[in-house]
Amino acid sequence: MELFGEIKDELKIVEQELHAAVQSPDPLMTQTSTHLLKAGGKRLRPAFSLLAGKCANFSFEQVLPLAVALELIHMATLVHDDVVDCSSTRRGTQTVRAIWGNKLSVHIGTYLFAKSLSLISRYESPLVNRILADTSVRMCLGEIEQISNPFDIQKTVKDYFFTIYRKTALLISASCQLGAFVCDAPKQMYESLRRYGHNIGMAFQITDDVLDLVADEKLLGKPIGGDLRQGVITLPVIYALKNSPKREKLKDMVLHQNNGYEPEEAVRLVKECGGIDYSGQIVHRYVTRARNELSALPNFNAKIALVSVADFIGTRRF
Amino acid sequence: MELFGEIKDELKIVEQELHAAVQSPDPLMTQTSTHLLKAGGKRLRPAFSLLAGKCANFSFEQVLPLAVALELIHMATLVHDDVVDCSSTRRGTQTVRAIWGNKLSVHIGTYLFAKSLSLISRYESPLVNRILADTSVRMCLGEIEQISNPFDIQKTVKDYFFTIYRKTALLISASCQLGAFVCDAPKQMYESLRRYGHNIGMAFQITDDVLDLVADEKLLGKPIGGDLRQGVITLPVIYALKNSPKREKLKDMVLHQNNGYEPEEAVRLVKECGGIDYSGQIVHRYVTRARNELSALPNFNAKIALVSVADFIGTRRF
Repeated sequence: MELFGEIKDELKIVEQELHAAVQSPDPLMTQTSTHLLKAGGKRLRPAFSLLAGKCANFSFEQVLPLAVALELIHMATLVHDDVVDCSSTRRGTQTVRAIWGNKLSVHIGTYLFAKSLSLISRYESPLVNRILADTSVRMCLGEIEQISNPFDIQKTVKDYFFTIYRKTALLISASCQLGAFVCDAPKQMYESLRRYGHNIGMAFQITDDVLDLVADEKLLGKPIGGDLRQGVITLPVIYALKNSPKREKLKDMVLHQNNGYEPEEAVRLVKECGGIDYSGQIVHRYVTRARNELSALPNFNAKIALVSVADFIGTRRF
Repeated sequence: MELFGEIKDELKIVEQELHAAVQSPDPLMTQTSTHLLKAGGKRLRPAFSLLAGKCANFSFEQVLPLAVALELIHMATLVHDDVVDCSSTRRGTQTVRAIWGNKLSVHIGTYLFAKSLSLISRYESPLVNRILADTSVRMCLGEIEQISNPFDIQKTVKDYFFTIYRKTALLISASCQLGAFVCDAPKQMYESLRRYGHNIGMAFQITDDVLDLVADEKLLGKPIGGDLRQGVITLPVIYALKNSPKREKLKDMVLHQNNGYEPEEAVRLVKECGGIDYSGQIVHRYVTRARNELSALPNFNAKIALVSVADFIGTRRF
């Protein structure tokens, strides 16, 4: 990504280290993990940790294990999510569970997670372990909450924010905070970056949820309306369930998908009543907050890149 | 257990802390974890960490988070194993997946694992994090190896030892090592206890595998021959596949269970050729090695208890 020009070389090495980290004596293990890595991904979390580190007293050696560990945690959640959601494709590629089955995927997910904590345990400061372990606990709670209340048409905006906070914002927030922390940033700086990450993470997930409804399927790499189909009620839908003049029809569509409704019809209702525009405004609010957190930082290139990332998140289309 | 009289009071508090550790704002989460805890278990890993701690400069406050974390890691592997093995009962009680389904079980397992690492991250020394994270990585590799090579009648005794080392001995070994380490044991002492734990863990798993073939179903809490049914080839069977005069028939039984064979027939062949006796000798060898590791330790009550545990493992029937 152009946005990450500042850390292009470092990201290449992160990629190599990710491949090295999943090499194991078990050929099947190496094969599945390599498949996962090759399936792509934006490597956002490593990128955030590197850029945050560059705002402080940057040492690539210090950030590298963290950057790799953050991506492994993210990959672990994706593998387990694919098991739970019975997903066959992700980013346009077959999922691990589609090729190797659920059983193996359960262990691969836990393996990647354990591997990430093993990398992290090399840091002398217990803070890094503590934050990533706590982040993981809360991420799991978010997942459990999401699958235990599907098709919840009573879901409020506040509930939704809490879900995406745990699902996405927490790890991005930890990426920014810890990237700065391991590069000896003063507390004030790594706390600002933590809040920046929180706001970016919220904006990112809302955009993701909007794109699940309105993106180009080819660019998205998965079918449109996947969340609705699985009963995951996202911000545009919550807005529409409250504000659409056709909200009773929408409720029926969400709850009784087998009645011959197409997801496209529900998407149309959400759009018509302004659910997408409303979500865009909320994204804009989080992006502004994220940018504001950066104002006290010295004006390094990395800071400029973080501002650009914030602006990009607010406008991305895939 | 009588054996653990020395640490009876501490184990009660570990039990309370286990219940406290899985309390969460999510009622479903608390419910499933409490179900798991109530289903029982020997709390062997906490017991080992406590007894090892008592061989050194014992501080219950120091050992407690470790003891709780060790049991949570063990529980996490059980929940994921039940998903992978499609098990409906364990210890005579319904499994989490049988009641709440596979999807929730995947996240509960990861949650318990993350929770344990979160408890552990409170220790200042990175060694505790490092050893438990590495142990978890290797445990996952063991699980993956086991499910990726089912019905492997070529499996050697060496392969088997490597599997059970990762599956069981590693965590028991870490329990003993770290229990002593967090109580300021000198390196020589916690390394002896690590090796004690390794040998006890190996003996324990071989006994478990023997009991899967010959125990009283009621005491065992699950059907006899479960391993064979799932293609898990254990020590007595490896011996029989090599040494039984009826090994060709046994091979056929292992590979073609649908041909109307009963597990009882296979068990009889394993017994007849001495597979159970041979395994008993191997258990005895590991128990002797475990006892020998204790000889250099001061003669505390805890050491006497560890010797008794070693002797018990060699003779247990359930």
